[in-house]
Formats: sequence, C-alpha cells, structure tokens
Amino acid sequence: MSGELDFIELLRAAPLHPGARGLEDDAAVLAIGGETLVLTHDMLVEGVHTAEGQDPADVAWKLVATNLSDLAAKGAQPLGVLVGFMLGEGDEHFVRGLREALESFHTPLLGGDTVSGGPPRSYGLTAIGRATHVPVPARSGAQAGDALYVTGTLGAALAGYEAFQAGDREAAQPYLRPTPQLAAGQALAPVVTAMMDVSDGLLLDAWRMASASGVTFEIDPTSVPIALPDARRAEALRWGDDYQLLFTAPDGADLPFPAVRIGTAMPLFEGAQLKLEGELIRNPDGLGYSHES
Amino acid sequence: MSGELDFIELLRAAPLHPGARGLEDDAAVLAIGGETLVLTHDMLVEGVHTAEGQDPADVAWKLVATNLSDLAAKGAQPLGVLVGFMLGEGDEHFVRGLREALESFHTPLLGGDTVSGGPPRSYGLTAIGRATHVPVPARSGAQAGDALYVTGTLGAALAGYEAFQAGDREAAQPYLRPTPQLAAGQALAPVVTAMMDVSDGLLLDAWRMASASGVTFEIDPTSVPIALPDARRAEALRWGDDYQLLFTAPDGADLPFPAVRIGTAMPLFEGAQLKLEGELIRNPDGLGYSHES
Repeated sequence: MSGELDFIELLRAAPLHPGARGLEDDAAVLAIGGETLVLTHDMLVEGVHTAEGQDPADVAWKLVATNLSDLAAKGAQPLGVLVGFMLGEGDEHFVRGLREALESFHTPLLGGDTVSGGPPRSYGLTAIGRATHVPVPARSGAQAGDALYVTGTLGAALAGYEAFQAGDREAAQPYLRPTPQLAAGQALAPVVTAMMDVSDGLLLDAWRMASASGVTFEIDPTSVPIALPDARRAEALRWGDDYQLLFTAPDGADLPFPAVRIGTAMPLFEGAQLKLEGELIRNPDGLGYSHES
Repeated sequence: MSGELDFIELLRAAPLHPGARGLEDDAAVLAIGGETLVLTHDMLVEGVHTAEGQDPADVAWKLVATNLSDLAAKGAQPLGVLVGFMLGEGDEHFVRGLREALESFHTPLLGGDTVSGGPPRSYGLTAIGRATHVPVPARSGAQAGDALYVTGTLGAALAGYEAFQAGDREAAQPYLRPTPQLAAGQALAPVVTAMMDVSDGLLLDAWRMASASGVTFEIDPTSVPIALPDARRAEALRWGDDYQLLFTAPDGADLPFPAVRIGTAMPLFEGAQLKLEGELIRNPDGLGYSHES
C-alpha cells in the first residue's frame, strides 16, 4: 500500500457511521440523548511527530492540544479525553505535561490504557466534545461567494521550531505548546459555512477544504498574517503546527470572533482548488506538510 | 518508573472526570443529554499483544473484540469505534479483519487516525457505547453474601493458542477471534452488583474485583467450566483472552442469562481477596497474566 489515502479508501468498505462523514472530516459526529458529540482520535509517534530531544511533557501537551484543536474546528466544548500511553523513560514528565494541558484547557481525563512496547513509543488520544452548535461545521460546506478567513498568525510554530533547534526553549513555546482555538471555534460555529484547523500548512489545508467543498479559493497570500519576515512568507504559508482555524462565512457576515480575511470562494474553476496570485493550483504537492500521519 | 500501576498513580494527579471512576475501572462513564455513554480505549502492540506470525486480520479483530468486551462488561450497546492505525505491511488484511469484526458486532466505524512509524507497530481503538442500564456496573460493587458467576468456559483461548502454535488455524479461532459477550452483558446489567470481563485470567480478575469491592471471594475451582482436561484446570483459571464475563449478583437472584456459579462473596477476611480450597490469597502474583498492558 502506498499510504494513508489508500488505507482510508479501504476503510470505506467497513460499515461506516453516518457521523463518520465518509472519513473526510477531522472529527466524527454522534447524536445522543438530545446532544451532539464530537469525537476525534490522533496518534503521535516518537521520531515521526516529535523532534529529537523533545521533553515528554511537551509531547503530552501537543497530543492534547492537537486533538482539542480538532474539537475547536467543530465548535465543540471538550468533555474529556482518553489517553493511550506506552510506558518508558520520562513518564513523570509526560504526566506533568498531560496534566498541565488538561488543566489549561479545562478538560478532564476520562481514562485510557497503558502498554509496554517500542521504541519507537507511540501515544494515542481520543477527545470527546459536546457540539455547541448544530449542524456541526464541516470541511465541505464552503459556498461560492463566501469569504475565507483565518483566526490568527501563521509561521509562529515554524519560528518556534527554529528556536527549539537553536536551544531557546522559551522562544520555542509556539511550536512546543500550541493552543487549540476553542473559544474561537465555539464563537464562530454558528456563522461559518466550513471550518477546519490548520495543522499541515495553510495552503495545503485550504486546498483540502476547497476540494471537499467543490470550490476554488482565490487567496491573496500577502493578506495572511505571518509571524516571520516577509521574505519567508511562502514558508509561513506552508508550515504546519499553528492550529489556527481556517473558515468560510457568507460575504459580509458579522463575525463574533476576530479573524483576517485572506480570500474568497469561487465556483470551481478549471478543476483548480486554489488560485494564488493568478496561478491555478490543481495539485497539493508542495503546499504543506503532507505526511502519512 | 516500575510500570503501569505507578503511572496510573501519577495520572490520578491530573484533573479526573467523575466518570473516570478513579481510573480503577475498565471503562469511563459519561452522562450526556438523557443518555449515559461508556467509553474505553485499548492499545495493542506488535510482539507484546500479538503472537509471531499472527495475521493482521486477526489482530484487527482482537483489537475490536477486546474493546467491545469492556463495553459488554458495562452492559453497553456499541455505538461506534475510532481506530488509530500505524501503516505498514498487510494493511489490506488489517482492514479486512476490522471490517469483519465491525460487521459481526454490528458496530460502525466513526473515524480515527493513520500514522507511519514502527516497528513495532501499535494500534489503538476507542469504543463508544450506550449504557442500557444505569447505574453502569462497576468492578467495585460486590457485596458480602453475593454469589459469584462466570458466563462461560475458560481455557478455550489457551487451547486456541496452542492450536495456533501447532499451525491449526481453525482450532485457534477462540484465541485469534474472541467474541465479546455483548448480549450477556446487556441482559445481566440490571441484576449484577459488580461485573468485569475476564481478560487476564479468571483468578487474577476475580482478585481485582474482590480488591475493588473490599470483599473476599471464596471460589470453588472445580465448579469453573473449562475447555481443557481437568489436569490443566489450574492453567485454565490463570490464562486470559477468553473474554467471558465475571459478575456478582444477590444470592438467589433470577439470572436473565445463563451463567455458572463459581463462588460467594464474603466479608473481607484477614485481608485476603480470594479463598481457594481453604487457602487465603493476599497477593495477585501467579494468578494470571499480569502485564503492563
């Protein structure tokens, strides 16, 4: 098999829950007891998703934050998490980071599993949230004419990564300890037509949203707020790990949370998902961090 | 750190959901709307939880079955699963086994995550169920005077494992493809005072239930139904992987599902969790498969 997409294609032959949304979204939706739950599960593998020398406390934080970011993109309020943990060196650090993240994001631990194994060690986390607005925003809802927005600055994680490599742990925080945009997601959910978190790079994730929605996004790259010098704009738009929210809303809609407009959804034009400074982009290669992960 | 128990002790310092039951149960309980959810997450590591040469289809089946067994012990009806998958060789087989298990147990796929990494590869599964009876049975509810029961035969998985080692895949089915006792769990939930699934050996799991409940179980080993010659009774009572349900109910209660009485709960006697043929057992060593997993 060549990778994740082939595997997901195979998985579609399994009995799918309607709330799985065809395995095309970041989280599943489950209506129960008059409420709607949002569920997401991410794994993290040492050496694949972590940098050499990363403190297990930061690994744990990131594991929590990335899953809560998926809930944020659905406008969900976290109810709890289950953690799958592989025992090893630095367990005390891992637990400390887990505790700090759960406290920071007001999310209790529900349970989980511990195993031995590795190296490499791997960890899993399942986050469960309560939808604060239905229908729960999807990637696929962008309509031609909608405006495209991002909630904050991109490239901060890239700058943080470079600081981490240089040994400056303080300046590395945006990379090591990202913040899921929970308040933004909950505020925006009633207004958006589509929403997702930017985990793999703004352009790649925008490409995916356009693809799922069947539209072409015309994006003005110079309008995107970045945390790096302008000469590095192309990189800032392609690096992941910032966990800002990318969303569309009807043109002129009153936004209940500050966001920066970066483009417009147009009817699908010549099969291209993106139009960047006049250039039509039909292929996601080179737009971001496209991992099997 | 010396292992799972130390790690769980550390975890208790994190903000715990009340439904985490102090991390002392097999599943978490989450009231939402007018319903109660039961959630469980198990990981499975190649080489730790799988045998050399095991078909990935069987690994996937077991991953589903063991998690659904935790739901069964809570009397929960499965609503769906999220799977964490590490890509590699034999992915098509894994998906086939996953599909077969989900179809057999009428459980849809909600979503999940795929990553690269390993060896060893590891997999995670989160199962979500709806409680069919509240309060949801716990390990800790056995009362002195209750009768102790098991829903079926033990040692079938051990016999299956030996068949697998001998190359007889057909006879290995009870080991390779266990069946979660979902119907039994749902039928019994309104009647039991405590319930859990037997995953690590009958005696060890009985020890755990007695410990959580603060009672002593007097067990007649000869009353336990086993799938092996009588000479191997001691092994059958210590081997895991059978996934029968172990439960207590008030003496004389009408059971809505067939089960075999194997003992009685007594007031905690001299700090011993078990009394076996007159012998008091205070230490779980040697009672079953006590893994860090």
